[in-house]
Amino acid sequence: MAAKKPTDSRGAARSALSERTDAQTRKGIVELGARVVRQSLAETDPFVDVPLRSLSNTSFNARKRLLEMGDSTQRRNLFNTAQARKFMQTVLLSKGCKDLIEAGKTLSLRGMYYMSLHTIPGTREKTFEGQEESDGILEDIEVALEALRENLHLFAKKRGTMVGPITVRDNGDEIDCRRMGTGGYAIPSICEPGVVEFGKCDAKFVLHVEKDTVWSRFNEDRFWEKHNCILTEGSGQPPRGVRRLLWRLHHELKLPIYCLLDCDPWGHYIFSVIKQGSINLAFESSRLAIPDAKFLGIRAEDYERCELTDDVKIELNDRDIERAKQIAGYPWFVDKKPWQKEIQRMLRNGFKMEVESLITKDISYVTEEYVPARLKARDWLE
Amino acid sequence: MAAKKPTDSRGAARSALSERTDAQTRKGIVELGARVVRQSLAETDPFVDVPLRSLSNTSFNARKRLLEMGDSTQRRNLFNTAQARKFMQTVLLSKGCKDLIEAGKTLSLRGMYYMSLHTIPGTREKTFEGQEESDGILEDIEVALEALRENLHLFAKKRGTMVGPITVRDNGDEIDCRRMGTGGYAIPSICEPGVVEFGKCDAKFVLHVEKDTVWSRFNEDRFWEKHNCILTEGSGQPPRGVRRLLWRLHHELKLPIYCLLDCDPWGHYIFSVIKQGSINLAFESSRLAIPDAKFLGIRAEDYERCELTDDVKIELNDRDIERAKQIAGYPWFVDKKPWQKEIQRMLRNGFKMEVESLITKDISYVTEEYVPARLKARDWLE
Repeated sequence: MAAKKPTDSRGAARSALSERTDAQTRKGIVELGARVVRQSLAETDPFVDVPLRSLSNTSFNARKRLLEMGDSTQRRNLFNTAQARKFMQTVLLSKGCKDLIEAGKTLSLRGMYYMSLHTIPGTREKTFEGQEESDGILEDIEVALEALRENLHLFAKKRGTMVGPITVRDNGDEIDCRRMGTGGYAIPSICEPGVVEFGKCDAKFVLHVEKDTVWSRFNEDRFWEKHNCILTEGSGQPPRGVRRLLWRLHHELKLPIYCLLDCDPWGHYIFSVIKQGSINLAFESSRLAIPDAKFLGIRAEDYERCELTDDVKIELNDRDIERAKQIAGYPWFVDKKPWQKEIQRMLRNGFKMEVESLITKDISYVTEEYVPARLKARDWLE
Repeated sequence: MAAKKPTDSRGAARSALSERTDAQTRKGIVELGARVVRQSLAETDPFVDVPLRSLSNTSFNARKRLLEMGDSTQRRNLFNTAQARKFMQTVLLSKGCKDLIEAGKTLSLRGMYYMSLHTIPGTREKTFEGQEESDGILEDIEVALEALRENLHLFAKKRGTMVGPITVRDNGDEIDCRRMGTGGYAIPSICEPGVVEFGKCDAKFVLHVEKDTVWSRFNEDRFWEKHNCILTEGSGQPPRGVRRLLWRLHHELKLPIYCLLDCDPWGHYIFSVIKQGSINLAFESSRLAIPDAKFLGIRAEDYERCELTDDVKIELNDRDIERAKQIAGYPWFVDKKPWQKEIQRMLRNGFKMEVESLITKDISYVTEEYVPARLKARDWLE
């Protein structure tokens, strides 16, 4: 357990990401340090092994339908001028995370950067040149310890909101997401069990929309009340907190996840990450990816199906076309005829469309007709 | 009152920004249209007058301590090739806002752009080339009608969160900001009376911090509970919703507003906008600006006062130096010796500092020592 755990009961609740996980993570860090000490005392060159986070060490597991990280690792030695800096940074930040866990506190990535920032005595060398350097090492530590960033007590910028027929216990507070007004419940950066727990839930599914402005349209039209669903948004590419929350709603509460995203390569990529995971966080796919997530739209055929006007067309640029082809080639899309057809049709159209384009029909067309019709017809891409 | 007002009681609550305001705003739009019709029937060149939103038409009212818009207007005629497009856009978007008010619905700025987007029959001319065009015209309409964007039923991207000893009624839902867990209450884009109402409040002041990651530190340390305050953040330059909420907390509940921002020109500018208003929204200063807001820090002297190390220094670049001098020259800073000293000292330091830099002292130094000490010593800039 945490050594200097605060006596404040709420602070404690906060730290208890789960006491077991905290103890495990701390143990992992202590072992990493002990290995380095043993190597040093044995007068060998100390090192840490860090799994490789690269496309070459990432593969698609067709059975689990997830992106997974392979077994390749990279050794970082202290007595190697090319590796010494990263070796020392890894040890330094590991200690920082240990301190955080023991204090029962959490910190932003920027905060951790500052906490570990100093000038090496007797030199003008700083421990980090910038936050990017420490962010990268922190991801290495996650992978090396097989611990989520959340287990290291670190968080990123918070984005995303939720409403719907569910009660959430967040750090001991009961939050009734049925009564969150126009603003909604701000989804925390850390959505792990122990911090966020689910209470009474009457929802039948989750509708996840790309943008908060679209979310506001659905919330104002009380879509979640009429259709008995949870309504979430991730302000673009959803951050880990939102993905983890969706994952838990899906796996723990068995709720299907429907996504309403733009008809463009960015929308398709957001869906791909929600569904199969991302290359950079492949080691976390099993705790973040939702292979059964469905893509409701916007579909390339909607231009004709919904009788939209030319005004909604946003021309695909060269970069879009290149991205679309890349996405069509992803192993988890390449064998899926409906997705191949979808991307081909978008390319043939020559334009992208945003969810907001449905407003040209009617303010509430998207909430009153489009989504209900797709759900009723079970018309989505998987 | 709204014509097609929805029967759903909550939808209605949402629309009732205040029925009186809705009726007034609608009347203003109808009058604008009626004038154009009268001019047309009289076979004169129809026009709309739009107050000028520019630095030249903005002045600092030293008595009210607010930025104010002057009386200069710009006439937009239909029969003038340089003005016809903007004239027609103004009329078109005014109609869009009237439709929204009558439907009792709200829409994002992007949504309104789409709603008003079409190709003029018989031409290949679109009503707007992009959203920037419609956003600008919507600001013109606000000024011309002396109505807030919120009164036009329009909202922007939502940012910012709040916790603290206050109960808020948001669209009829009671939200107890004392029990919002780690996530907090997401501050809506529209924080007008009628949508957001204040219930029981035990707070003695508001602490507004620049970033959500810093906010999380304060929330985790239960600062708001220990110090009986409301804790808000605006994710950088606070959006209108957050500014309006702060304004209302200050004016309606008489709470002092203390700001904790970075020691850099951007932090100073954020404070300037919170306190005196912005040039672009000068016409709304009286409903957004808080002349009594206080700047707690970070102060340029904190490098020495808090015994920080060189690691926290972020060198000022040319652009920073230029901005700092501009800000020092603002009429509302130019006569304030403490602000002149502050900016001079930062320039002499040659570096900026972020709030997070205090983490180099201790994770909770900012919540346990820095802010309490400043408050106790009444040590702030005004």
